Formats: sequence, structure tokens, C-alpha cells
Amino acid sequence: MIIVLKPHATKEHADELMQRIAALGLRPLYMPGQERVVLGALGDERAIESLHLDSDPMVESVKPILAPYKLVGRDMHPHDTIVEIAGIQVGGGRFTVVAGPCAVESADQMRSTARSVKAAGAHALRGGAYKPRTSPYSFQGLGAEGLEILRTIGQETGLPIVTEVVDVGDVELVDRYADAFQAGARNMQNYRLLQELGRSRKPVILKRGMAAKVDDLLLAAEYILAEGNPNVILCERGITTFETATRNTLDLNAIPLIKQRSHLPVMVDPSHGTGLRELVTPMAKAALACGADGILVEVHCDPPNALSDGRQSLFPEQFEAMMRELKPIAMAVGKAL
Amino acid sequence: MIIVLKPHATKEHADELMQRIAALGLRPLYMPGQERVVLGALGDERAIESLHLDSDPMVESVKPILAPYKLVGRDMHPHDTIVEIAGIQVGGGRFTVVAGPCAVESADQMRSTARSVKAAGAHALRGGAYKPRTSPYSFQGLGAEGLEILRTIGQETGLPIVTEVVDVGDVELVDRYADAFQAGARNMQNYRLLQELGRSRKPVILKRGMAAKVDDLLLAAEYILAEGNPNVILCERGITTFETATRNTLDLNAIPLIKQRSHLPVMVDPSHGTGLRELVTPMAKAALACGADGILVEVHCDPPNALSDGRQSLFPEQFEAMMRELKPIAMAVGKAL
Amino acid sequence: MIIVLKPHATKEHADELMQRIAALGLRPLYMPGQERVVLGALGDERAIESLHLDSDPMVESVKPILAPYKLVGRDMHPHDTIVEIAGIQVGGGRFTVVAGPCAVESADQMRSTARSVKAAGAHALRGGAYKPRTSPYSFQGLGAEGLEILRTIGQETGLPIVTEVVDVGDVELVDRYADAFQAGARNMQNYRLLQELGRSRKPVILKRGMAAKVDDLLLAAEYILAEGNPNVILCERGITTFETATRNTLDLNAIPLIKQRSHLPVMVDPSHGTGLRELVTPMAKAALACGADGILVEVHCDPPNALSDGRQSLFPEQFEAMMRELKPIAMAVGKAL
Amino acid sequence: MIIVLKPHATKEHADELMQRIAALGLRPLYMPGQERVVLGALGDERAIESLHLDSDPMVESVKPILAPYKLVGRDMHPHDTIVEIAGIQVGGGRFTVVAGPCAVESADQMRSTARSVKAAGAHALRGGAYKPRTSPYSFQGLGAEGLEILRTIGQETGLPIVTEVVDVGDVELVDRYADAFQAGARNMQNYRLLQELGRSRKPVILKRGMAAKVDDLLLAAEYILAEGNPNVILCERGITTFETATRNTLDLNAIPLIKQRSHLPVMVDPSHGTGLRELVTPMAKAALACGADGILVEVHCDPPNALSDGRQSLFPEQFEAMMRELKPIAMAVGKAL
Repeated sequence: MIIVLKPHATKEHADELMQRIAALGLRPLYMPGQERVVLGALGDERAIESLHLDSDPMVESVKPILAPYKLVGRDMHPHDTIVEIAGIQVGGGRFTVVAGPCAVESADQMRSTARSVKAAGAHALRGGAYKPRTSPYSFQGLGAEGLEILRTIGQETGLPIVTEVVDVGDVELVDRYADAFQAGARNMQNYRLLQELGRSRKPVILKRGMAAKVDDLLLAAEYILAEGNPNVILCERGITTFETATRNTLDLNAIPLIKQRSHLPVMVDPSHGTGLRELVTPMAKAALACGADGILVEVHCDPPNALSDGRQSLFPEQFEAMMRELKPIAMAVGKAL
Repeated sequence: MIIVLKPHATKEHADELMQRIAALGLRPLYMPGQERVVLGALGDERAIESLHLDSDPMVESVKPILAPYKLVGRDMHPHDTIVEIAGIQVGGGRFTVVAGPCAVESADQMRSTARSVKAAGAHALRGGAYKPRTSPYSFQGLGAEGLEILRTIGQETGLPIVTEVVDVGDVELVDRYADAFQAGARNMQNYRLLQELGRSRKPVILKRGMAAKVDDLLLAAEYILAEGNPNVILCERGITTFETATRNTLDLNAIPLIKQRSHLPVMVDPSHGTGLRELVTPMAKAALACGADGILVEVHCDPPNALSDGRQSLFPEQFEAMMRELKPIAMAVGKAL
Repeated sequence: MIIVLKPHATKEHADELMQRIAALGLRPLYMPGQERVVLGALGDERAIESLHLDSDPMVESVKPILAPYKLVGRDMHPHDTIVEIAGIQVGGGRFTVVAGPCAVESADQMRSTARSVKAAGAHALRGGAYKPRTSPYSFQGLGAEGLEILRTIGQETGLPIVTEVVDVGDVELVDRYADAFQAGARNMQNYRLLQELGRSRKPVILKRGMAAKVDDLLLAAEYILAEGNPNVILCERGITTFETATRNTLDLNAIPLIKQRSHLPVMVDPSHGTGLRELVTPMAKAALACGADGILVEVHCDPPNALSDGRQSLFPEQFEAMMRELKPIAMAVGKAL
Repeated sequence: MIIVLKPHATKEHADELMQRIAALGLRPLYMPGQERVVLGALGDERAIESLHLDSDPMVESVKPILAPYKLVGRDMHPHDTIVEIAGIQVGGGRFTVVAGPCAVESADQMRSTARSVKAAGAHALRGGAYKPRTSPYSFQGLGAEGLEILRTIGQETGLPIVTEVVDVGDVELVDRYADAFQAGARNMQNYRLLQELGRSRKPVILKRGMAAKVDDLLLAAEYILAEGNPNVILCERGITTFETATRNTLDLNAIPLIKQRSHLPVMVDPSHGTGLRELVTPMAKAALACGADGILVEVHCDPPNALSDGRQSLFPEQFEAMMRELKPIAMAVGKAL
């Protein structure tokens, strides 16, 4: 940890801070510069955080050297982690496709959609029973009834089920139905929920928050791993920027960046990442090309009549075409699809 | 609602959409332009949302005319709402100051801080018992013990208590201790929590999310009002932008903008809005000058030893100085402080 | 054009506005809704802009129906444009690679870099003689001497030359040396420069500004086409967002979006788009997969000693590896590399 | 300067870097941590920038300690600078109001507007002869004719003239007419223009770019001071964010932040900063309250017929009311208006 003092900080002040650093068992370092005095603290700098040095009025800024996460980081865990969703592998040379509608609307809608995505090669089925919606007047999901439908259709088609959980109180119920939890972008910093998911051993697909840096996403994942659940799949789904032509800005830089910093598998959601059906296939291809371990994509048997997110849902024949176009790229980058 | 069709949409397609609009009891309108056909739908356009016209492959875009919220909007409720926190008025010509530490750390820390902010003129006391922290390794709050301390100190000093609730499961407990709930920026779209708070009648200070537009904040407030709780105070606390010199970018444009669009009172949190103690007083003054109904400000009896957010906490003497500087501005803008 | 009136606007006011619309030869439309009166104006809505209706105090908002550009838009020009840089085709089924250092530093540096990128399959050579730098104390480029070096090395290697022009006063000089102009992100809204480039017939690679929406980029291109130069290549190079781990956020959504809206070819600059050498190859692959017509990539014969942007410059062997990895993806998406 | 090495960097590598640091006359420092080796370089760290250490493949990151600017910084120049525009003081306890239309449209329009703003207490007159417009089809300004009108009206009313210059080639001409240059947000990184303005001695009002951090603005100002012109007034005019309800997000945090970091005076442009006439007065008051040295505000004698930016232009009577409302706040904060 590097501590930059204010221009008018005295030697006495520096000494006092160095004593506090030493008292923690760290090695303090004194670096007087031309315009500022800089201190260093060698050792486990996560310990030094407890000193809250940035609160000191004589401290101008504090610059950490190490990443703030441990368990999700690649430093201590150099090899790629593979997570399994009911036998379906995510990570490690595979490109996993999770497809389905935004929301579970009825058994017929799920059955029709599930059959077509399965026929086209999807590996798992998604669908929301609990929908966090911006407006209280929008469709909020079928709840427990939706979970029942998901299980029925999952069993019929043999597709593992991925579904979102939005509240601590629902975790137990969802756990009984789903093969993997999804924690949505709006809940990436719902730490209570993350901790509860950390006490399960089911895989968690953790979506990046709209205003979350990659490091914030990794810290959110750290909450889950710190509770004992190592089965986390990160998911880039677009961030909030000034661009209004797309619903979000899909940040594919995040894929190779996460691969550098973390051992966890990472998926991409080109549906929310763009908000526009026409952009989903190109961005799915880009995700595959830059190293993502899979995609989460919205497909609906009848998008014009979808109860939510129809604008970004693929028609079944578009999904089929996308799968066909992904295959040669998967071969080109050496991934199994 | 205005519906813009794609360039190649046919007359038949337009007719079909107009029939769907008419079937809802709305009046459809046909406007053929030089390069695009545009349709209109006159009547309650919140009804037309159920058609999900933006999902139709022949529709290029949909432009709503009305704001998506009703209860929080000024259209139907032109007069300013005044919310009371245990007898303390927020809105309506007063400038209300809620002060206290980021987190409740101990009875001594709360007592010392509460006495000094009370002496300087604060109207209510804040302090977090449950802290949503970016890192799982940071101090997470004292929980129920913190609530006990808050109540004790509140009774000792006669200051009403404002504290954050982060989970649906805690609402009942917090309700027993606090005079007003705070819903934090990370929970602005935790709709389940908002609905639960809507079933209380206690005031809710609802903070704007880091990536939330003003209209998103108003829609979040609509969730609370729609459940029956009219006592909502909005709070601007800084948004996420590219600027890194400050923790967030305090968006004071939001104050007069919210005043135009909504009848609810609005406060400003200059502590989180800047992240820097030195900027808190100038921004508190700006908030008062541009029409805010109050501030939420972090003060700690000993900032260098605060367990969280010390960098942005005022020293007690700084808070006292700020209150002195606010007074003549309050007089200048005709507000009671 | 759709004009939404304020809630308290009277029928007289609406009539007056409709007369102004009709006086322009457009057909006005009156749409009284439940809470707002809405007006329409059918006809060339670029004409109606001259009415400045959004300035009227009774007008709440104005919603244009058509895109604000004409010449760059796909509506009137459905087929893809192919631009040639000294015989090298950009667009139309090819993936064009323009490579070279950020700045021209010396003949030796250019020669060494040019030879290696040529050997690895690059189609054109880039290098800056005029460098817009954030700090006045950073290397600002060799100027005219740099142009001389570029021409010499271009002739030696047979590679066409692409170089940035930063000021109207330099256009004539640069025109004598370069095969294509580059207009940088900081100059995307330097309209005087764009107009001057519009009076040339040399190709212009126009980079998206850091805070420019895709439509702003298309409008900037419209400036060049409006002056008579149809040879514009758009370039996505990353936008400014809150993410700090990468220098910019490469917005690949922009590629399929631009392809929908415009007939112009579009390249990607993964070097500035990421700022990190390690991310350049994955993002180049993603750019190819999602439909870009080429890349602009920084390669330096000795990155650790580069005078600018060394952090994002590829080593020659990294460039060679990237070209090898791009080939099978090009085949997979049916592009010639 | 702090240099963090990659986890696998060897002692040899560190030694080599330390020799390069020492060769520059700086004192190198070796700090081996548990997971990373960190190097320090004591001395003038602007020198060390020439080593381009961040380009080295063994370097993970480089953390500068000092601000990258010198002349504009407060470290070496602790006292506030006062800049004079034709005898009108900006900075030092005054609140200076520069008012006028976005664009010069005619002598009548300028005369009418100038008389009313003068009567209401404005200190200087603004008006654009050269207008950078997003669309090539929008009004681009009267050019030299506009400058003539500005001079005439300035002489008639006794108001100093502030006008924008958009191209190096215009500086000499504008210099003959204007009392102060304005460098617009789109040109904040047009370094050639900044250097040319640095060779004048006339005051320059330098506006913050839409995607520029405060430190970028200060570096842009450094370009002007480095050429010898100390008369720079900074101007906050709103930044680009995700919020769409306002044209830009006025970042008032920047005012106290700039006051900490720089000795230059700073103004606020609430017209561009909000884009909405109704928000201009509240934000002007906020600017005054948080320490700005003045405002640049758009007023038009007939906003509904303005050729540009009418939506954000005040009516003359609104400007007069604003001036009346500013007066008591100026007194409250101890400024002369």
C-alpha cells in the first residue's frame, strides 16, 4: 500500500502513521519526494485497510497495490475453473448456450420455446419466474407457478434450468427447482442475497451491475466464494453509458480482462447487452471470438406477443441461424459448441 | 404513444397494428410520411404498453408521450408534498438536516456524534446498522445491536432516527427502531424491498441508484406509493460517471428537474455525492441554493478512526461551521433552517 | 416530427403552431390526448427543424422520426460502400488490417515496424506525425519530418500510408504524403477540419469521439460527405465510461448498429479501444466476428521504448500471432483477410 | 512514481528498471511485497515519464504521485489568480455574469439582447459568430459579419465581448474583435488551437470537454499557460452521462475540486450544463453558492425564434429575475455581484 501525504504534512505526522503501520506487523517505508512525502507499507495490505488511512486529514490519497479480492483472483489460483450445471460444463474449452424467454409466461410458451432451442443445440434453458421490472405496472412474473412450469419443461426436454432469484426469502424455494441460480444486474450488490447464494452449492450465474467496474463484479463474486460456494459463473450483460441507440453497452473488453484477473468462467448476455434483436447474433459471435465461455440469450416462441423484453428476443428461426453461424467460429477458436 | 414503422412496412401491417390499438379502446391514427409510416394511439397509453408493440419486427421504435409514473408525478398532484419524520417536517419551505456517522460503531461513538450534531442544529440522526459494502472483508455493521444503540441515543438526544434497511427480512425489525427508513442506492431497484416499504407508513428516504436516471428514481418511488405509502423523500446522492477525482458525480440538475416532475420532497447527500470531506460543505450550500429540501450528511466524532467512509465524514467542528454557513443562504432563498 | 405540448397549452397555442407548420408546406396533425395535446408534422422534417419548436415555452418536447443524416444513411443508399486506399479495398467482404506505431519516431523505427507488419500480412501502414497529447509535456510528433519518413518507408515497403491530420492548416501538406487521412477522436467534432477533408477526395478514416453516440459519429461523417467526399471509413475506438481497468470501453455494439444505419465501411481500433496490449488480439477477433471491415492496430518494433502509447502497442511477434489467429475466423465468417 | 511489477517479474528485471531510474538522476527504491515487487522513484517524476515504464511487459501498473500539471496547479502558486476581461474582474471575491445569445443572428437581435442583459446587471456580452453544430444542416454562424456586429453592440452598450474561436486560422481575426476568447467543449483537446491562444495575452475562457475529467481540463489549460498566456478562466459546462432528461450533467463537484487543485478562476455555464431554460436559474444559484467565480448564461431577446439553442435560452425577463435572485445569495456567501 502506498500512502501519499498532503504537501504540508510534517515529519512528525509521517512518523505517527509509520508507527501505526508497524504496530500492525507491516513494514513501513519512508519516501520523501520533492513535493510530497510518500509512505509505503509492505506486507498483507488487506490488513492495513483496517487503519482507514484515507480518513486521516494529512493523507492525500492511498494507492493499493494488490487487488481487493483473493478467492476469485488468478494470483492464488492460476488454472481456469470449470463449473457444472447439472452435468453441463461451463468453461474449459466449451461454449455453453443457455437460451429461453425473458419470463415464464405459460407452460405452452415454455414448451414451444424449449423444444426449438433444444433442437437448435442449446445446452440449458432459461426463463424468469421473478422479474425485476423498472415500472410497478409491468408484468412481474408468475412466481412459484413459473418455477413449476420451468421444472416440468426442463424434465420434458432434458434441459437444465437456469432462473433468477431476486430475494433472500426466495432462495430456498428456487433452490428446489433450478439447476443454477441467476443473480441479476440489479442485485449484483445485494450482498445479503449473495451471501445466501454462497451458502448453497448450486452454480450461480452472477451478472455484472449496470454501473459496476469489472473489479466490482469480482468483489461481488468474492462474497459468494467467501461463504463457501465456488461455483460462480460471471456474466457480462452490458453497462450503462451515454449511448442511447442500444439498451446497454456490451463491454466485451471485460471478457479478456476477467480472464486475466480471475479463474472463473465468464458468459455474455448479448440480449440485455444490446436490447435489440438484430444485434444479438453479431455480438454472440464476437463474444465467442474474444474468449467467452458461453452465452445467455433470450429466445421466445412468439416475440411480438412476449410479456417482457420482446424487442430483444430472437425468433426461434433466428436462434437456429445464430447457432449455425457460431459453429465455424467455435471451430476457428478451438472451442466445442 | 407514437409508433414508427420500419421503411419496408406495408399498409397491411399498419392496418393490423391499428386494429390491435383500436381493440384496446384507444383511437389509432395513421400518419404516412415521406420515408416512414408513423402511427399514433390516443388514450391511456399505459394500456397500450400491454401490446408490446416494440417487439413487432415491423416496428422501428415506440415513443411514449406520457411519463411512465402516475402517483409520484406532478400532473395529477400539483402541490408539494410534505413528509414528517417523527414531527420533523421535510419539504414545504424548510431545509432539513439529517446528520450522523456512516455506521453505528458503539454507543460512545453515537452519543458523542449525536450530541455535537444536535448542538450544531441537526434535525435528525442517521447511522447505519446494516452496511452494504463493496468488499466482503469490510466492516458490515452491528445489526440489531446497532439498532438498539440508535434508539438509546435517539431517546437521549431527542433526535429522530433514520437508518438503512437492506433486506426484506429486516423491515419489520428496523420498523420497530427507526423513525424513517433509508433505502440505499444499491437497493433502488430492489423492488421486493420497495414493495415491503410501501406496506409500512413510515417515511422512506429513497436514494437514487448509481446508474439510475431521474425517471428511474421516480419509477422506483412509484413502487412504494403504489403499495400505499405516500411518505417518500427522494435523495440525490451522486451518479456513476467517468470522473475519478470524486467518488460519484453529484447531479444537482436533478433537484430542479425532480421539482418539475414530482411533488415529493427531495434531499441531497453531499457526502456520498462527492466522497471527499472538503467538498461536502460547498455542495451542501449548492443543494440549498438550487431548491433541495434538506441534506443527509456524514459526521463522525473521530473521522480518522471511522470504520467506514471516514474520508467523506465531517469532523464535528466542520459540521458546525457548515451549519453556520448554510444559515445566511437559507435566509437568502427563503427557507427555514 | 412529433411535438408534445405542455399540459397547460391551450387550443389557440396548438393552432398557432399548426399554422407555422403548414406555412412551411408540411401537413400538420392534431392529436388531443387525455393529459397532453400532441401535434404531428408530415413531410420533410428536416425543414421543420428551422421552426425551432423546442424553444417554444408551450412545447414540452419534440420527437424526430427520421435520422438527422441523409448521405451517410442506408435509407437512400441501401448498398454497402467500398472505399479504396491506394488500391486497398475497405469494405465489401474484405478484412483490412492497417498497422504501425502510434507515432513516427525515426526512419529506423518505421522501417523495422513496417517490414514486420508487412511480412505478417498487414495491408497498410499507420503512424502519427502530429500527435494530440493530453499533456503539453509529452512527445508531440515529428511533424513534416515524420511525413517524409512515412512516405519513404511506404515506398520502400509498398504499403499505403494512413496518418492523422489535426488541423485545417495541415490538410494540404498531409494530402501530399498520405494515402488516407485519419481524423482522430478528439477532432470528431472539429467541423472545420471535417469540411476541409470533405473538399479532398482522399479516403478519411473518421474515429468516433470519446463521448459521441453512434448518431453523432454518423452526423460527423455527414459533414465530410456533404462537402463532396464520399470516401469515408468510420472507426470505433472506444468510448469514455466509468470503467477504469481499460483505457476506453470498446463499443462493439456499434459495428452491427452502424451496418444497419449506414452504408459506409467501419473499422475498429482495438489498441485505443482497450489501452492494454494483452486485450488487443481478443478484441480484434471479436471485431472481425461481429462484422467490422477491418482494424487499425498499433504495433511497435520496440514497445518498451515507444515514445507514446507503448502500453497498448503489440510486439511484432504478437502482431504476427494475431494475424495467424484472425485467419480461421475470417474464413468462418466468409471474409478475405 | 510507484511502479508495480507483474507477479512473475524477477529480481534481475527489477534491477534493470532501477538502473534506468537511477540513470535519470532519480533515486530508485526497492519494495518487495508478499505478492508483488513494487519500485519507487524519488525526484522529479515528470522526468521519469520519459522512461515509459508502463510499456514494459514486466510492469503491471504505474502510479504517479504528483499531478501531471505544474503551471495551473496550486502547489507552486497558492494564491487565487484574478483575470481581467477589459477591466472586468473574474475571480477574487466577485461573481461575474457573462450573458447573451448562443449565436449572433443580427444587429437587432444583439442590440435588443445586450440592452436587456446590461440593464439587468450583466458584466459582459457573449455571442457566437462561429458555431460548431452537430449537424451540417444547422445554422453555422455569421462568421466575420457576426464579429462586426459584436463589436458594434459592445461599443454601444459598453459591455466587453466574449466570443468563441473554433479554428487556429481564425484566432488572429477574432483577436481583433473580442475582449476574451472562448474555447468550446468540443475544442478542449484541440491542442493546436490551445497553443495558438497561449501565444495571445487576451483572456481565454476554456470550457471542459464533454468527456474530460477535471484533470484533463487542467492539462488543457496547462497548454495555454505553457505558451505564456496566464489569463485562463476555466468553465464547467456539463459532462456526458447516461442521464437523458438534461442535455448534459452539470458537475458542480468540479468547482470546489478545481479550487483545491488550481489557482485559476472558474465559471459555470448553466445553459449548456442543463439544456433546459427552467433549470438555468436554480443551477446558477447553486454555482454561486458552491464557490464559482461567475456564470456564462444564454439569454435571447426572443428564444422561440432563436436560430440555435433556444430551448436553453432565458427570456430577458427571466434573466432579470435570476439576477435579482442571485443578489441575496451573493451577499450570503460574501461575493460582490
